[in-house]
Amino acid sequence: MSNMEILQKILSSKSIVKVGGAFDAMSAKLVEINEFDAIWAGSFAISATHALPDASIMTMTEFLGVATNMVESCEIPVIADCDTGFGGPSNVSHMVKKYENAGVAAVSIEDKTFPKQNSLLENGKQELLSEKEFVAKIIAAREAKKDKNFMIIARTEALIAGMGMDEALKRANAYENAGANAILIHSKKNDPSEIFEFSEKWDGSIPLVVVPTSYPSVGVDELIKHKIKMVVYANQSLRVAYNAMSRVLNEINQTNRLTDVKENMSTMQDIFQLQEMYNIKKEERDIEEELKKLGYLK
Amino acid sequence: MSNMEILQKILSSKSIVKVGGAFDAMSAKLVEINEFDAIWAGSFAISATHALPDASIMTMTEFLGVATNMVESCEIPVIADCDTGFGGPSNVSHMVKKYENAGVAAVSIEDKTFPKQNSLLENGKQELLSEKEFVAKIIAAREAKKDKNFMIIARTEALIAGMGMDEALKRANAYENAGANAILIHSKKNDPSEIFEFSEKWDGSIPLVVVPTSYPSVGVDELIKHKIKMVVYANQSLRVAYNAMSRVLNEINQTNRLTDVKENMSTMQDIFQLQEMYNIKKEERDIEEELKKLGYLK
Amino acid sequence: MSNMEILQKILSSKSIVKVGGAFDAMSAKLVEINEFDAIWAGSFAISATHALPDASIMTMTEFLGVATNMVESCEIPVIADCDTGFGGPSNVSHMVKKYENAGVAAVSIEDKTFPKQNSLLENGKQELLSEKEFVAKIIAAREAKKDKNFMIIARTEALIAGMGMDEALKRANAYENAGANAILIHSKKNDPSEIFEFSEKWDGSIPLVVVPTSYPSVGVDELIKHKIKMVVYANQSLRVAYNAMSRVLNEINQTNRLTDVKENMSTMQDIFQLQEMYNIKKEERDIEEELKKLGYLK
Amino acid sequence: MSNMEILQKILSSKSIVKVGGAFDAMSAKLVEINEFDAIWAGSFAISATHALPDASIMTMTEFLGVATNMVESCEIPVIADCDTGFGGPSNVSHMVKKYENAGVAAVSIEDKTFPKQNSLLENGKQELLSEKEFVAKIIAAREAKKDKNFMIIARTEALIAGMGMDEALKRANAYENAGANAILIHSKKNDPSEIFEFSEKWDGSIPLVVVPTSYPSVGVDELIKHKIKMVVYANQSLRVAYNAMSRVLNEINQTNRLTDVKENMSTMQDIFQLQEMYNIKKEERDIEEELKKLGYLK
Repeated sequence: MSNMEILQKILSSKSIVKVGGAFDAMSAKLVEINEFDAIWAGSFAISATHALPDASIMTMTEFLGVATNMVESCEIPVIADCDTGFGGPSNVSHMVKKYENAGVAAVSIEDKTFPKQNSLLENGKQELLSEKEFVAKIIAAREAKKDKNFMIIARTEALIAGMGMDEALKRANAYENAGANAILIHSKKNDPSEIFEFSEKWDGSIPLVVVPTSYPSVGVDELIKHKIKMVVYANQSLRVAYNAMSRVLNEINQTNRLTDVKENMSTMQDIFQLQEMYNIKKEERDIEEELKKLGYLK
Repeated sequence: MSNMEILQKILSSKSIVKVGGAFDAMSAKLVEINEFDAIWAGSFAISATHALPDASIMTMTEFLGVATNMVESCEIPVIADCDTGFGGPSNVSHMVKKYENAGVAAVSIEDKTFPKQNSLLENGKQELLSEKEFVAKIIAAREAKKDKNFMIIARTEALIAGMGMDEALKRANAYENAGANAILIHSKKNDPSEIFEFSEKWDGSIPLVVVPTSYPSVGVDELIKHKIKMVVYANQSLRVAYNAMSRVLNEINQTNRLTDVKENMSTMQDIFQLQEMYNIKKEERDIEEELKKLGYLK
Repeated sequence: MSNMEILQKILSSKSIVKVGGAFDAMSAKLVEINEFDAIWAGSFAISATHALPDASIMTMTEFLGVATNMVESCEIPVIADCDTGFGGPSNVSHMVKKYENAGVAAVSIEDKTFPKQNSLLENGKQELLSEKEFVAKIIAAREAKKDKNFMIIARTEALIAGMGMDEALKRANAYENAGANAILIHSKKNDPSEIFEFSEKWDGSIPLVVVPTSYPSVGVDELIKHKIKMVVYANQSLRVAYNAMSRVLNEINQTNRLTDVKENMSTMQDIFQLQEMYNIKKEERDIEEELKKLGYLK
Repeated sequence: MSNMEILQKILSSKSIVKVGGAFDAMSAKLVEINEFDAIWAGSFAISATHALPDASIMTMTEFLGVATNMVESCEIPVIADCDTGFGGPSNVSHMVKKYENAGVAAVSIEDKTFPKQNSLLENGKQELLSEKEFVAKIIAAREAKKDKNFMIIARTEALIAGMGMDEALKRANAYENAGANAILIHSKKNDPSEIFEFSEKWDGSIPLVVVPTSYPSVGVDELIKHKIKMVVYANQSLRVAYNAMSRVLNEINQTNRLTDVKENMSTMQDIFQLQEMYNIKKEERDIEEELKKLGYLK
């Protein structure tokens, strides 16, 4: 079963799909080990680990490299956050071919302008791309994909840009008509009211996805009740890693001995396990067994 | 002042140089923020974040990419752990040119065989490269470098391979004669006795470097007393990040609400700060100012 | 039908499979346009275009990047020349996973040591890897591949290393037993006698592959008669490109006007065609049509 | 002397600087061998060799990788054609840091919109970026560069977009005021009249650059007479390579024997020379000499 089929299957069989945010292959593997359904290769988190602003600075090549590493390390599907699609419809078309060829199961593209408006030059207005132009990108993505199970998630920022509920619904419908396979409805409110209103008024037939970074008090049970099919915990892994590293580095620099550092560290063995050092040893033993069978070793 | 000059300067002016381990640009930046003198781009940690064994599996291109990101994000020097130099003398020569061109201040190469001996096939013997062959690599590195301040750190695994103190000293001397600019003396003992014995018997004139992963109870004061000029805290940042991420992902999957998660997270603002989101805004304002001066904005 | 299946199909249906050498996506596309059956992503040619020696200097990442570009640009299968497999069995295992995931149809690995012996240091002996060690690599490759149609081509340099016909046959048999899917028998003689002797004595059941760089007078009809199933024209495209570019650059620098340059150039339109500039325009028209249907344009 | 200083020096000392187009390290090296003053890493040619449209499809990472290979292989300066700067001012700022760190001597950015307008969707209009927005990019580039000798070449497409001579001159002046170090004035006319008119009316103090692809009959003597300081032969090497490869591949597929192929090929030795196979052998001998001196060999 391909990664794309796995994602489709869990979407149709589970009440809600839980997606854990990751920014490199190790964090992706930890998402898998901790039994999430899928991995979110988030552009904010990946930009952060490159110490670069989340402002269309990193290139598609760089993001794709990270997502490919995740795909090659994990069994569960990888969903790639592809921002605005790295340009216009032709860029989206190229991007979809590359991501699909790499084994990524789904991409998410959003209806902001690229590159992010330089807000001060433009008097701070956070404008969206016109519906027509974003529909053109969805069509480009739909035409570029080969496997029907490859998912195009259309993310609308209409609520965040302050364009209102009707615009958000209108756009979501337009994106579904154009060929999107899911709608990510984003909100920066600190409660889920807006999301719930959207889901109640939504009469489309494709799944809804949410990212509750700004409304963390929402319960999974509530999301399920409101017909949300996928929830993305985008950046919590990044934020605890940041915090833990800040503390330990500060402590190391303050103390005389590493043994005085209070921070909890995983053992070297935990990490050997994750990076498959033991697996490489097993592979070596398997090869040795084969060499014995073939008469090269006794 | 170039990165290479900065590293030379702190080596000559400080009692001991403290180097913090990092595996991507964010962790490198946290090393810088927490006032270490330099960054260790460690191959174990970088392999781990790629979920790949630390066994010469990742390529020079991949390691160099990570080190380049660090150089471009940080002001303090980056020291790249280059394992065995990715092959023979010609590979080392090529590697030194690439790393120096990228702005890395120092590389460390070690006297193990490449690729790591398949220990089971070879009856588990952890053999070192012959002294002659490793000296050939140091000569290749020395001839390839352009900037005299670029440092070649020769790491001997003689103690770890059980070849004894005399062999370790003999090799360290040979490596200095061949052109190494520092000796990294490695030990897997859980106390620093071996390291201290080495440093007492060492009569070379280039600095000694240690990585106290296996003897964390050693004090910085003791290292200084024993003429160690550089200490590398190679993987503590990785290990706390791993641990914190494991915990938070497990909690998220167990609880209904993100607000029930106990783990300490950095704020989004902390991360915006590190990735220079505010700097990009400042750059935008500066450009706006210039545009005003030039009459394009009022 | 996957790239791997296509390659298997032409191997079983054609009297001989013709493979054209390429070093980037454009040369690969020219191989396709000129109706070869498959593309050889040759390490000599790729190294040459990077102005780097063909001596295990370029990394797997770099070679894989080139091969991936070819796969994404062409319909016919890509066969990747992977030298010695970039290290030991663990490197081969990793490499096979990466190449297969990228859509490459076959890889070729050869039984030389890695990195190439520094011939002067080693008194100029061009030693092969022991049969056992190369068999270990083939086992690693076989275990790493997922698609049964993915081909592992084992290339023996036994004749080139002067080890004789019996050794070449013994190794070829051993490689087949270990799981190789084809044997590339290489010769540096300036006639095909050695190759023909090999093919007559060969009683294995997997296909034979040749690269007649050093014996260019051999006829395709003769190869077919001698049970060769695949012929690789590895570097002729590179060598004519080199020659043509040398001439034109020399002429440009000697003459006053570009119009005085005698060299035949393709038109810009030829190149637009190859790089799918017209296709991008067609995609734009298709999107426009869709936008009209959806009511966004009139 | 740095690459940047070399470029400045030849600009001030030669009557005209001749720049040869290249698309990989080998073609760059051939430009150098044939005694051009500098290398043009052209986006059209590089896109073509990736079999991708010249339409902002390839990423900065990919273009930078090619330019870096050129820098590391050649002694003469590399000038990178960076299209529109890969986005807005923040992208330009990031790009300049990356290219300068890689040792590129100059970048060229042009005043078209990014990504290239989808001409059919937009009724085929080839619009330029507003002067203000392009000036913002130049300011961003100027502020990002560290070495004062690093050159920012501002390319105006005003004549190509049909905006007239006055607009072209007005923009060129504005770009110089904003910090550009040279103006590339582009024309698609099949004679140089437009270019000559521009150069006569131009009263700026920074050098003028031309790319006579569409007016190949112009003489170098005429360019010099019209105060042009740099001429770029952007794609002739690509076009002869394309043509020669097409012919040879066609011939190989038609004939029975390679020896029947008429095309002129370079020898393997020519290519060994370019890729420094002999240099690697020399390095080996040098290391051997050193090892003898140190007593490791007799």
